[in-house]
Amino acid sequence: MTIKPVEWREGVVRILDQTQLPERVVIDEYDDWRGVAEAIRSMKVRGAPAIGIAAAYGLALASLSFPDEMEAFRKAFGEVAHAFAQTRPTAVNLFWAIERLQRVVQQSASATEARQRLLEEAHAILREDEEADHRMAEYGVALLPDNARVLTLCNTGALATAGIGTALGIIRIAYQKGKLAHVYACETRPRLQGLRLTAWELLQEGIPFSAIADSSAGILMAQGQVDAVIVGADRIARNGDTANKIGTYTLAVLAHYHRIPFYVAAPVSTLDLSLPSGDAIPIEHRDPTELTHIGGILIAPTGTPVWNPAFDCTPAALITAIITERGVAYPPYEPSLRTLVESGASREG
Amino acid sequence: MTIKPVEWREGVVRILDQTQLPERVVIDEYDDWRGVAEAIRSMKVRGAPAIGIAAAYGLALASLSFPDEMEAFRKAFGEVAHAFAQTRPTAVNLFWAIERLQRVVQQSASATEARQRLLEEAHAILREDEEADHRMAEYGVALLPDNARVLTLCNTGALATAGIGTALGIIRIAYQKGKLAHVYACETRPRLQGLRLTAWELLQEGIPFSAIADSSAGILMAQGQVDAVIVGADRIARNGDTANKIGTYTLAVLAHYHRIPFYVAAPVSTLDLSLPSGDAIPIEHRDPTELTHIGGILIAPTGTPVWNPAFDCTPAALITAIITERGVAYPPYEPSLRTLVESGASREG
Repeated sequence: MTIKPVEWREGVVRILDQTQLPERVVIDEYDDWRGVAEAIRSMKVRGAPAIGIAAAYGLALASLSFPDEMEAFRKAFGEVAHAFAQTRPTAVNLFWAIERLQRVVQQSASATEARQRLLEEAHAILREDEEADHRMAEYGVALLPDNARVLTLCNTGALATAGIGTALGIIRIAYQKGKLAHVYACETRPRLQGLRLTAWELLQEGIPFSAIADSSAGILMAQGQVDAVIVGADRIARNGDTANKIGTYTLAVLAHYHRIPFYVAAPVSTLDLSLPSGDAIPIEHRDPTELTHIGGILIAPTGTPVWNPAFDCTPAALITAIITERGVAYPPYEPSLRTLVESGASREG
Repeated sequence: MTIKPVEWREGVVRILDQTQLPERVVIDEYDDWRGVAEAIRSMKVRGAPAIGIAAAYGLALASLSFPDEMEAFRKAFGEVAHAFAQTRPTAVNLFWAIERLQRVVQQSASATEARQRLLEEAHAILREDEEADHRMAEYGVALLPDNARVLTLCNTGALATAGIGTALGIIRIAYQKGKLAHVYACETRPRLQGLRLTAWELLQEGIPFSAIADSSAGILMAQGQVDAVIVGADRIARNGDTANKIGTYTLAVLAHYHRIPFYVAAPVSTLDLSLPSGDAIPIEHRDPTELTHIGGILIAPTGTPVWNPAFDCTPAALITAIITERGVAYPPYEPSLRTLVESGASREG
């Protein structure tokens, strides 16, 4: 896998600018953390796991210019961490990565030690995410029937993570194992991550697929052409309610109506057990121009008002199973997700 | 209402080129019926009723150059009628209009009489459609609660008919009567008739609305922000199954799940009682570039395969009522639609 959305190289954070795909493959290099934060905000890097990794490297980068005196170092870290936390509100992997790095700073005795350990922690987050994708794929593929026709939304592939992807990682491995017949990739308005990014990844690997308008998912299911829906997640509450790309809820209702399994694939870092339900997950609303402009060109009448939530929340009752790197959680999710989290704590503890 | 999608003026058919809206208001003039047929095929004029009107005027225009000898006239008419019937397969109003003109030709004794009566019949179709919109609006508004928040798809307005529109006509009159709080206009991928055309009409009249990505209709309903869904139709089978713009079925399933009334608004000319169910309605698949290009610009990777049905079929069981200019039909639709059709036959007979 040669697609790397985020990379560290000799004191520089390299980010593949996904807003320019598929037309151009442009890699931006940042030697100032502010550039990394802006790249997250403007969605040059996107996908919940990749956002966490970008923030981790951004903090490691920032720490190179923090004061050597430890109290001042911690204060500077806190300020930059706060700035990263402001970039995108919904994906919890961002906050999870920041907290991991926060703990490293607390445990470090000197600025030199902290700088080194921050970078190591960022590398660890990336490596763990890569491994998580592979384990998730194994668990996910086992749930699919032979010759599976899978519908997915947005981009949950190598562009969204450090590895082969979450939902798209499952699709990749299913294809490699000969279990996959076809992928239907919802184009994913307004930002077209499906049509631009998922199509780009699928074409590179020769995986058979069709891009579809988001609104045609219903009739596709009614025609019996979909065996499973697999999507990623930006934040999963304690009870299994899942925030993900806008349109996920619509697909979940459609899958429920057509009795098609609806799977969420996400690493444990996407779980937020502090939240009792999806009601508490903040939903980002983004600029109206995401809908009214494509490639900088106005496609709506001037002055068109827009309602543009970037995510929606799917209630746990519509989710058949949640696939993580530690196993598959089934309803009721409160105990099953807790068991997965605790299994990791004991393994890592 | 000054929007006229199709107009006859002194031996010329004038068509407002809707593919150029909202950027430019361009009216093309055709003195050859082939141009009118191509305008239908390329969706310069679209919307089931407007397609029927355009075909009627196209046939009247063609008749001006038919031979005077009556047998040769009828033969020429048959050939041009066949060409118009090939332009778009799903909307039945096209075939209905062609048949009305066919009858006129059969009843005419001379070419001169036929030419005059063909034009009169085309004018009559336009005038009846305009009147039908108003009556439909009265019936439709009566079904809405006060301060209604209505979700709609595609463009069913003055651009799609000869009058105020079908679903959008109901919305217009509801607004004029103070019964409308807000419209949610699904952008309607791939061709964005909602974002381009419906937004254009709503802005002109100052009707409060928000454009939304098609995929966000689900969460909008879940949040309790939609009191009714109203859509148009391209063909309605005897049992009430309704072919309409792709995405209609998805909205119908969502409305069903959220217990929101789902209304179809269409003139009686959209009914096709010859078909027992929606299974028999031909569904047009259109060019992949509709999805992969916007404004001529490629937005997907080169070689992206696409599944692009222009319409889907919504089963009668998901439709709360069908609003026509002769009244409102409720399930079971086979008797209720037949009653509406027969009431017109007796009135006109």
